Amino acid sequence: MDTKTTRNMQISITDSFWGHTRKLVRTQMIPYQWDVLNDRADITIEKERDDPGIPSEKSHAIENFRIAAGRAEGDHYGWVFQDSDVYKWLEAAAGSLRETPDEGLRAEADSVVELIAAAQQPDGYLHTYFTIKEPERRYKRLGESHELYCAGHFLEAAVAYYTATGNELVLKTAVKLADHLDATFGAEEGKLRAVDGHEEVEIGLMKLYHLTNEKRYLNLADFFIRERGRDPELFIRQVKEDAKEPVIDGVYRFPLRYFQIHEPALQQTTAEGHAVRLVYLCTAMADLAASAPNEEARIACEAIWRNIVDKRMYITGGIGSTVTGEAFTLDYDLPNDTMYCETCASVGLIFFAAQMLRLAPRGEYADVMERALYNTALAGMALDGRHFFYVNPLEAVPAKSHLDPGKSHVKCVRPEWLGCACCPPNLARLLTSLEQYIYLAREEEILVNLFIASQMHAAYEGGSLDLAMNCDYPRSGEIRIRADVHDADARVGIRIPGWVDGVSCTLDGKEVLSPGAGADVRDGYLYLTLCPGGHEIGIDIAMTPKRWYANPKVSADVGKVAVCRGPQVFCAEEADNGADLHELYLPEEAPLSYSFEEDLLGGVGVIDCDGLRLSSEAPALYTTDRSSYTYRPQKIRLIPYYAWANRGENEMRVWLSFQQ
Amino acid sequence: MDTKTTRNMQISITDSFWGHTRKLVRTQMIPYQWDVLNDRADITIEKERDDPGIPSEKSHAIENFRIAAGRAEGDHYGWVFQDSDVYKWLEAAAGSLRETPDEGLRAEADSVVELIAAAQQPDGYLHTYFTIKEPERRYKRLGESHELYCAGHFLEAAVAYYTATGNELVLKTAVKLADHLDATFGAEEGKLRAVDGHEEVEIGLMKLYHLTNEKRYLNLADFFIRERGRDPELFIRQVKEDAKEPVIDGVYRFPLRYFQIHEPALQQTTAEGHAVRLVYLCTAMADLAASAPNEEARIACEAIWRNIVDKRMYITGGIGSTVTGEAFTLDYDLPNDTMYCETCASVGLIFFAAQMLRLAPRGEYADVMERALYNTALAGMALDGRHFFYVNPLEAVPAKSHLDPGKSHVKCVRPEWLGCACCPPNLARLLTSLEQYIYLAREEEILVNLFIASQMHAAYEGGSLDLAMNCDYPRSGEIRIRADVHDADARVGIRIPGWVDGVSCTLDGKEVLSPGAGADVRDGYLYLTLCPGGHEIGIDIAMTPKRWYANPKVSADVGKVAVCRGPQVFCAEEADNGADLHELYLPEEAPLSYSFEEDLLGGVGVIDCDGLRLSSEAPALYTTDRSSYTYRPQKIRLIPYYAWANRGENEMRVWLSFQQ
Repeated sequence: MDTKTTRNMQISITDSFWGHTRKLVRTQMIPYQWDVLNDRADITIEKERDDPGIPSEKSHAIENFRIAAGRAEGDHYGWVFQDSDVYKWLEAAAGSLRETPDEGLRAEADSVVELIAAAQQPDGYLHTYFTIKEPERRYKRLGESHELYCAGHFLEAAVAYYTATGNELVLKTAVKLADHLDATFGAEEGKLRAVDGHEEVEIGLMKLYHLTNEKRYLNLADFFIRERGRDPELFIRQVKEDAKEPVIDGVYRFPLRYFQIHEPALQQTTAEGHAVRLVYLCTAMADLAASAPNEEARIACEAIWRNIVDKRMYITGGIGSTVTGEAFTLDYDLPNDTMYCETCASVGLIFFAAQMLRLAPRGEYADVMERALYNTALAGMALDGRHFFYVNPLEAVPAKSHLDPGKSHVKCVRPEWLGCACCPPNLARLLTSLEQYIYLAREEEILVNLFIASQMHAAYEGGSLDLAMNCDYPRSGEIRIRADVHDADARVGIRIPGWVDGVSCTLDGKEVLSPGAGADVRDGYLYLTLCPGGHEIGIDIAMTPKRWYANPKVSADVGKVAVCRGPQVFCAEEADNGADLHELYLPEEAPLSYSFEEDLLGGVGVIDCDGLRLSSEAPALYTTDRSSYTYRPQKIRLIPYYAWANRGENEMRVWLSFQQ
Repeated sequence: MDTKTTRNMQISITDSFWGHTRKLVRTQMIPYQWDVLNDRADITIEKERDDPGIPSEKSHAIENFRIAAGRAEGDHYGWVFQDSDVYKWLEAAAGSLRETPDEGLRAEADSVVELIAAAQQPDGYLHTYFTIKEPERRYKRLGESHELYCAGHFLEAAVAYYTATGNELVLKTAVKLADHLDATFGAEEGKLRAVDGHEEVEIGLMKLYHLTNEKRYLNLADFFIRERGRDPELFIRQVKEDAKEPVIDGVYRFPLRYFQIHEPALQQTTAEGHAVRLVYLCTAMADLAASAPNEEARIACEAIWRNIVDKRMYITGGIGSTVTGEAFTLDYDLPNDTMYCETCASVGLIFFAAQMLRLAPRGEYADVMERALYNTALAGMALDGRHFFYVNPLEAVPAKSHLDPGKSHVKCVRPEWLGCACCPPNLARLLTSLEQYIYLAREEEILVNLFIASQMHAAYEGGSLDLAMNCDYPRSGEIRIRADVHDADARVGIRIPGWVDGVSCTLDGKEVLSPGAGADVRDGYLYLTLCPGGHEIGIDIAMTPKRWYANPKVSADVGKVAVCRGPQVFCAEEADNGADLHELYLPEEAPLSYSFEEDLLGGVGVIDCDGLRLSSEAPALYTTDRSSYTYRPQKIRLIPYYAWANRGENEMRVWLSFQQ
């Protein structure tokens, strides 16, 4: 078995939970986003902030390409990074077409590819804003221009679309762009020694390298990572030299760590700055380390990973503790009501985790991937597939969002679309490529990372393996895998989630985890060596609802408890429990009763519990007399976090008080 | 007895607690501020925010007057409201001179008066910014210009300075200014029907009315209050008509309620918008209602008072739950770590409470006055009298202030001075006029509102009264009042604080509060009728440290307890308790032991308690296993809130967890 087999894997998802979600993406989200990009949808585009400088009237993204291609008259409209919306849509479309052929979608996507190629400049440059408005300012404001960021998204989309459809034009355009970047940027004399304000091109270059095996792309990604933070004054110096109006106002009020340029990227050990930027940087850095020996990159990735997971991540897999700069703050600073927890950041955390798995087969990487996937990422989309969260709070009160400016970014209902439309297409591309995260072919084994019903075929030296995973996860912890091994032994590593406290595993009917059975369990994986022939693997994970507590260093969660079942974090919503959720107490000894409600929120598991509500008839704001404070019995119902805010604007809370 | 006797009262403070503080104001703060205003002090002026548009290099306030008076060349520098720093200093100087004659200070203050008079325009207009820079824009941008705000501060200062010193020029200048305002503003044809973006002129006009009995000033104050919010579009319309650069950028991004113009002021029932503005409005509105029958004003004041005190005030007497617009948010929204709680707002709340006492003799008004005075207002100043807080948090962690932008306004060390220097001189003028808040002469009686050692003489129809109050409050609850009544019976109302749970009162050695003694206790006052002759009144208030709890509707304080003793709120500081104060638990049954520490923080009472610290050796950020969480015994020491942040930058917390 060889790492290269990854690309030779064929995987198809047969899962009902994710099948439903992916169908929503295919039938609702992608067509809807297509209409948005073409300014066709009768939608409300909300502003992120109440600032007249923020474009939000329309998307105009496709029209920008038409203008840049000389096919239409007009000016560029929208953010300087508006192109990336189109690229992310194209990547999502690629995933969808890989799963389900669709002639209409294929034609739309082909037309987009053709349009992108037409908008590309003769030298390979590709960015509609500067092409249309200010070609002379190319690469002159890299701190804010998002030129390489957009390039990276195109490279990712191109690789996905070429892989899914074999479209040669998209690959040609990508290669032309990458070659242009390679000719322009680098440490060599005569090249521009600079990086982009927003990491992403590094990911795209690595993907193009994996597809083409062109080492220049790997080297260029390596250059961008190595260069990052070597010259912290770069962006400010460019601004001074350019001396013109900014293309995005205000980014330089953020500290250098916003851009991860406060110190050399390869020497960073903590998660700093804009959360999406950081995880994109780490995704590329980990890919680099997994693709060619790079000890510095590996060490940086492991340190930053540890810092995120041990000190700066919400229980929902959300990251970014502050709205200002959508950024990390400091260790254990995890406020539940003012955080950012951008959908894109959790999507990026999944990318990062997937690359870390390539570096080392540690179950914790898949645990975090699963945590982010089933909670914050999935919460980014409404059950209708047409409304989207950017910010994913762990505690939301509509009146506070309306009247406390410090919480105005916390929406209690998903908007239809936002002027800065990064999250919805990012989520779409993740969900349509979800099969890539289930299995991982490493040199020695195939890892089973996520429990998503699917079929996989992998060829390796001397043999091949077919796996058919059947499960109704996370509703049930009963997972059945039929393995058909051909010609040579296969080695399978099955993830045992870090959160389980009861699991059994049978191979061909025999329990392998019982004491004395000599099971090979390491770092969160149970390794099975399968001889040629057919095998039945059964994994039974206890899916008991459980109470979780935060480390006492997290001031926001002292005296509080969260309830999870399997990978899902649960939350209390006003629709089930009434308002003032902060008054609810979840007694430590109260049983947590799980049931599946077919008719609720499209079918969700719920957890019911005999709880309490603290209240007082006394009107005084402060009192020395707690005797009027009563803890009245109240049934508490919890729903999965991802499903909140689908019943109108209402309160929600993940962390509930408990009596100590 | 008649209300008018108020002005005929002579009061002098002999108190050691406030004597010390007032001496600091006299010997440190006033000379220091004088140096600042004259750009002489070698001080660091901190910016409130990191914004290049904010002036902070120097004060320049006196120089602005010199330039406006034609005595110096140059441009105006500083905020458009920079003049008010000078006026508030003058008012503080007046108070200081009233208490302690000082030839040097008198000469400085006289010279300032002379300079102000010289800067006044022939028609009475007084505002250095517009006089120097843009005389043609007078009153054209009232939403932001602070012209009437500054005028109000001058009127207040003039009344105080004239009263203290008899300086005729200051009164003449004030009358000329007030007459100019009266000729300019009003509902009559030909007058400008408008209000200022920041209330204050109404207070100044009422004070000038009380001094001069000129009814036009009362009517003009009445006009400004009645007009406020009648025309919500006023400021925006002025901006459109003016069509020039703003004098302060960004104020119109705030909602109309920021300025209290979202609805007619007299119809408002909740505390909305910028907290200082609101309490200034209410101060004037209550003064108006107490000075001439005005049922609308009285009803509005009572409704807003109830809303503040029952739903929007911190236990420290702080108000303003958000930094954005330094404003109120919504009922029971009292976050402890992101709030504003501006020193000025608590000073203004004291002004408001004092006027409410004129409307009705209810102890709760004095309770709030005392709460704001002993806690947030006093915390505004360092023990050295030369460093000042604007923002008064109930929970502060230095690392969060440095790294979480949502808490960057929360300083953990008092800065020397800030570019927007509103709070220090506001505090100075409050403290130098403190005697005005101790006693209140109403028609039927003299109220004793605060327990501050002092001597008072009041004349009334047919007689007079001398009171000599001796106490060491709040260190001790033992208050002795010697009353000498001349010629006619005197009636004294002694406040019984709402927070006491043990009090005795003797009149000439006889307990008057014992059952059956028929004491006249109403609305927080014990009324005593004293016949001519000498009397000894003894009040003994139990000053036991007590636990306080917030209403369960306050989500920030659920499961938390605060400790107060008498009027003082206590807090835990890192210097005494180590860092991570959120880990501390104050067990419900643990005795609170009070002692006075002469050598600590200039002499403070401290409260010691056998507490607990929650901690865990386990490094995991989230766990299902709380068995590693231990509650280790730890001595907890609490100090008075006002004294925090005098031992270097460190953590502080008012609300501690308790075990339920």
